[in-house]
Parts: sequence; C-alpha cells; structure tokens
Amino acid sequence: MTGTAPAPFTADDYRGRRERAARAAADAGLAGLLVAPGPDLVWLTGYAPPAETERLTLLVLVPGQDPVLVVPALEAPDAAKAVGMPGLALRDWTDGKDPYAATAALLDASGRFGISDNAWAMHLLALQKALPGTSYASLTDALPMLRAVKDRAELELLAAAGAAADATFEEIRKVPFGGRRESEAAADLAHLLRRFGHSQVDFTIVASGPNGANPHHEVGDRVIERGDMVVLDFGGLKDGYGSDTSRTVHVGEPTEEERRVHDLVREAQEAGYRAVRPGVACQEVDRAARAVIAEAGYGEYFIHRTGHGIGVTTHEPPYMIEGEEQPLVPGMCFSVEPGVYLPGRFGVRIEDIVTVTEDGGRRLNDTTREMVIVD
Amino acid sequence: MTGTAPAPFTADDYRGRRERAARAAADAGLAGLLVAPGPDLVWLTGYAPPAETERLTLLVLVPGQDPVLVVPALEAPDAAKAVGMPGLALRDWTDGKDPYAATAALLDASGRFGISDNAWAMHLLALQKALPGTSYASLTDALPMLRAVKDRAELELLAAAGAAADATFEEIRKVPFGGRRESEAAADLAHLLRRFGHSQVDFTIVASGPNGANPHHEVGDRVIERGDMVVLDFGGLKDGYGSDTSRTVHVGEPTEEERRVHDLVREAQEAGYRAVRPGVACQEVDRAARAVIAEAGYGEYFIHRTGHGIGVTTHEPPYMIEGEEQPLVPGMCFSVEPGVYLPGRFGVRIEDIVTVTEDGGRRLNDTTREMVIVD
Repeated sequence: MTGTAPAPFTADDYRGRRERAARAAADAGLAGLLVAPGPDLVWLTGYAPPAETERLTLLVLVPGQDPVLVVPALEAPDAAKAVGMPGLALRDWTDGKDPYAATAALLDASGRFGISDNAWAMHLLALQKALPGTSYASLTDALPMLRAVKDRAELELLAAAGAAADATFEEIRKVPFGGRRESEAAADLAHLLRRFGHSQVDFTIVASGPNGANPHHEVGDRVIERGDMVVLDFGGLKDGYGSDTSRTVHVGEPTEEERRVHDLVREAQEAGYRAVRPGVACQEVDRAARAVIAEAGYGEYFIHRTGHGIGVTTHEPPYMIEGEEQPLVPGMCFSVEPGVYLPGRFGVRIEDIVTVTEDGGRRLNDTTREMVIVD
Repeated sequence: MTGTAPAPFTADDYRGRRERAARAAADAGLAGLLVAPGPDLVWLTGYAPPAETERLTLLVLVPGQDPVLVVPALEAPDAAKAVGMPGLALRDWTDGKDPYAATAALLDASGRFGISDNAWAMHLLALQKALPGTSYASLTDALPMLRAVKDRAELELLAAAGAAADATFEEIRKVPFGGRRESEAAADLAHLLRRFGHSQVDFTIVASGPNGANPHHEVGDRVIERGDMVVLDFGGLKDGYGSDTSRTVHVGEPTEEERRVHDLVREAQEAGYRAVRPGVACQEVDRAARAVIAEAGYGEYFIHRTGHGIGVTTHEPPYMIEGEEQPLVPGMCFSVEPGVYLPGRFGVRIEDIVTVTEDGGRRLNDTTREMVIVD
C-alpha cells in the first residue's frame, strides 16, 4: 500500500531534479535541504511513504555530497523500490536508535538549511537540539520556485488531469441541480473525478445562491433552488499531478444582473489569461484580471488573489498576487480564477489552469466559459 | 466538508480537557501548549479542519489565561461551529496579516512551550523568529500521557470500534484466501471496516507466507497459496476513535510447527493481557508477553514492542516497551500484540486492544484467538 509516484519519470529525471535543487540551495546560501515526506520528497525521489509519522524519514541534500535518505529500517524495503532511488544512499535506522544523531553527522554544524514546510515540529526540534549551531528556513521561504517550472512530462500529466476535470464538468452539467442538496452534487463531482482517473479528490466546492458569495464555502446541506447561481470548484490528483477548475452554472434562466456579473468575471479571467507570457511578473496577472472587475465597479467584491501554482500539489507557488514580482518562466503552471462575491446574494468564479509557453499562455482547461444553464 | 468530531462529547467535556491540559502544562513547568490541527486539537476542541496547511491554525492554551484559537478568517465560520468552541476565543486573521505576531502577543516571550508533534516546521520557525526567547518541546515529549486516560464516553467509542473490527474479522474469515492476491483480501478488509461503520481505514495488512515474517509488510501482489499462514492486521477510525486488531489465519491445514508457533503467540498474548492492572509499569506488559516467547526459544524472533496506545489516533502513548516505567491507570487503552517472525518462512501476530480497569484489564476485541483455518 506504500506508494511510489505513478508518474512516468525515470531515475535520471529524479537525479536531475536533485542536482538542480542542490545548486539552487547553494545559490541561496544554504548548506543543504532537508526534505520530509510530502510533495517535495515525491518530486525529488518518487518515494511517498503512506504518512509522515513520529519515525523520521528525511532526504538530506547537501551541495557537493551524495544525497542520503534517512529512513526507518521497517520502511527501507519500500523506499528502496522508488523509481528515483538510484544515486541516493539509504541510511536506515532501527527503533531505539537515534536518527537525529545519524542525520546530524551529515550536516555542517553551523550551516543554514532549508527544511520542508510540513516537516514535523518534533523532528525540527530534535535537529535543533542535536546541532545547536544550525539555523533553518522553510523550503517555501528559501526556494519558493523549486518545483514551479514543469518539464514536458509534468506538463503532459497536468494537461491530462485538466482534461479529466473538464470531462467531469461536461458530465456534471447534465445532472439536475434544483431540489438537490449541495452535498449530493459534491458527491457526484467526487465520483466523476475518480471515474475520469483521479486517485485523490482534494475539493468539490458546490456553493449555491448566497453560499456562493463565500469563496471558502465548500459544501453544505443547503437545497439548491431554481434561480440559484452555483459555483463549482473541484480538483485533485490524477497520476500524481493536480487539477483545479471552476465554473459557475445557473439553475434555470438567470437575471440580467446575473448575466452581467458572469460576463464580467469571464472577461476578467480572459484578461488574466492574456497577461500570461514569459518575463511578466506574477502580480501583473492579478492586476490584469482585477482591473477589469474594478473598472466595472465591482472591485470590492473580488476578495482573493487571482491564482496559485499547481503540480504535485493543488496549491503551491507561484502565487498570482499583488506584490509577487517573480517573472513568469515557460513551464510554470497556475490557476487564473477571478471571482465576484455579492454578500447574501450570489458569487461567480471562473478558473482555468494556465501554463506559460514561449510566447504566451496555454489553458489546460477548456470547457465553455459562457454561463451554463442547468436543470 | 470540514469536520467536527462526530463523538458524543459536550462543550463541557472539551472545556474539562483543556483545563486538565493547562494544569498538566503548568505542572510540567511549561508556559503553555500550542496545538496544531490533528488529534490533539480534535480532542481539545472537537475542531478538525480538513487539512493542516501553510495557513496557521493554532490553539493557544496558557495556564491562567482564557484559551484562544488562532484561525484563518476564511475558516473561522467552520471553526465556530465546533462543539468544543464555547469557552474558547476565536482570533481570526486574514490573508496578508501576520498570524505569528498575533500568536506571539499571547505568549510569555521567555517561556517554554509544548507544541504538537505534527505542527508544521514553517509555523514553528516563524514563532521562534517572532519570539527568540522562547523554547519548545514536542507535546509527546512534554506531556506524553495527555490523552492516555480515556473517559467513559471515549471507552464506549473504542469498544464500538473494536466490535466493528471484530465483525470485520468474522466476515473476512469466510472469504477464500488461496489463489487470491494479498491486495484483494486487503481491499475486502477495507470494505468491511467501512461497512461496519469506520469512516477512515488506517491499515489493512495482509501478509502471507514469507511476507508474514516482515512485521511491517502491508500488502502486495503476492498470490496467497494453500499452506500459507496469513497475518491480518487492520484498523482505522469509527466515530472518531480507533480500532486495531490482528489475527493469523491458515489456508488449509497447518503443520505441527505452525500450530506450535501460533499457540506460543497466543499464550504470550494472554500473558501480556493478564499482566494488565493499575499501577503496573507499561514495560511489565511487554516483559510478560516476551518472557513466554523467550522461554520457548523464540525470543530473537519477536522483534517489536508489545503494544501502543489508541484513542483519537491508532498509534499513540502509552507504549508497552522495555524502559517505559509509566504505571498503568484505569482508562488507558492500548494494544497487546506479540508476534513471532521466522525469516523467509512465516509470521504470527495476535493483537487485541485492552483497557485498564480498576482491578485488571478488559479486552475490546474478542474474536477467537485459536488459529482459524480459511479456504
């Protein structure tokens, strides 16, 4: 049941990523990277233990040294099978031994290290105790763009995940909404995502009527009514890579105002998408989408950032947000998802995953962005 | 989709737990407890956000102060609905604000704090930066017995989870094993656990023939053969509380040696169970089970501790292991699971959850411990 990433990567792909990561660490003035189970470890080794636990598993990447995976002895046989293991030394430890001493022996006792955001506090505390002269920065603070630029195989997997999400939308638009609970439509979305190849469903937001005005509303027991706008926002992982798309549908005929707001969000999403090209700062994508909504007088109702990166997780850098000056690079993938939220009334959000190409952007979602009328 | 613990606890139950935890912190010389999403937070508040993320959610329990839950504004409405929220102040923060400064303002700038084992390193690093004079210990190091003694409602939930695991065993023993893959039998176990009320399946170990000699083998593609011993070890969460039981079955008639080893493990399990009573040190349970196996000459083949606690997680303190001098207290719940593992040949493990009563122990699993012959 322990998994290796099902992605079609070779040992050389993983080795190349580790080499790039070690170089990036050195360039950032770090003595090394300490990678706990989670997306970074999957990306660097193909190894995904079933869960992060109190037993230390840690990839130690020190520039100029051979990389080492510290792993509990009981889990070593599974780790050894991971596709990315060639070129990586396994250092296993048995219950009762001190894995922190073994890890400390690999590290510069006065170095600064990047450590996975989600590494457990108990592991960090034990390392700090073993090596009081070291200091640490979270990996996202230290190397935010580590996984941001996708290679061709990754782009293919993201495109396939996007296509599966699109197929999900094409099916969900056929089901009846009026008279059913949000939670029932959400269960349909989860079922469809799995049917189209997702192994993990991360979110299935169904936000009807006034619930749509809360961008964080996930799903509830509200019965969807005729005349409701319904925000659908769903995604997860297919073959180890993420999907995330939003469309806003209407149960029966919309009012003129509902149409106008939907058109506005569609234009904002289009403007965000058109802003995408190499060298443009992330914040420019946010500004482009936001300007459309602000000019129409709805600026105060667009209350979140325009987008987030996607890859082996469904939310990661780069963020399309005011203040993010990181220039776009071909291969980056992220959402463009402006919205308008009218408190107590309704909300609209339209979202595609977009990847940066040599001369612009390419959408990985392509269902209609016109308002879809459902039953 | 965000959850509150489905357990039948009242606001007063949660308040009482927080008060006990704050007293325990003070007794341990801590300036407070910092509790991240996960089992401790569920136990102290009934609140379970869907996942721990880069957005800080943290319960701040400082002896003598009102407890505070720091929570992202978008998640505050869900948090407010948790059963344990009365008596707990919500301090919400919006994207772009600094939640660490807000948290730091609640803390003694030179205090020592207990922090959840699984709190994210990025959050701990940010707190250390905001308050350089503070120091930290993981909650399991600082207060290992915080959740160890269960109250009556918790014991009822653990008993119900155990009964569901037992019902699973009664069904799985009827299915054919020979000729099927371990992974197929594991899928049956998962299905049955859910059918009998589990909302979460944590493990479904099916270790046949030589795989049974690796106590950490979970499941694989090996086709189970006639003549195999098969270790089954399965559990998860039902209504927020854990199950975990193991039985070893045989496909067709066992050999005389297989019977002898199975009988030996059964006697060891019985001896461990009989050692349970208030005031006895945890390590005595381990010693009692281990002595039976050692006296029969199989000591070197019993290669793990005898047991672990169970509650809102399926693995937690107290541990039944040599060196653990913690005395047993009525209400503690833990596994008693000796095993014998003969490399390259087969393994046997028998496991029940046992709770400490006023005058001994009571098993929460009660399927037969005789060897079951399956098809």
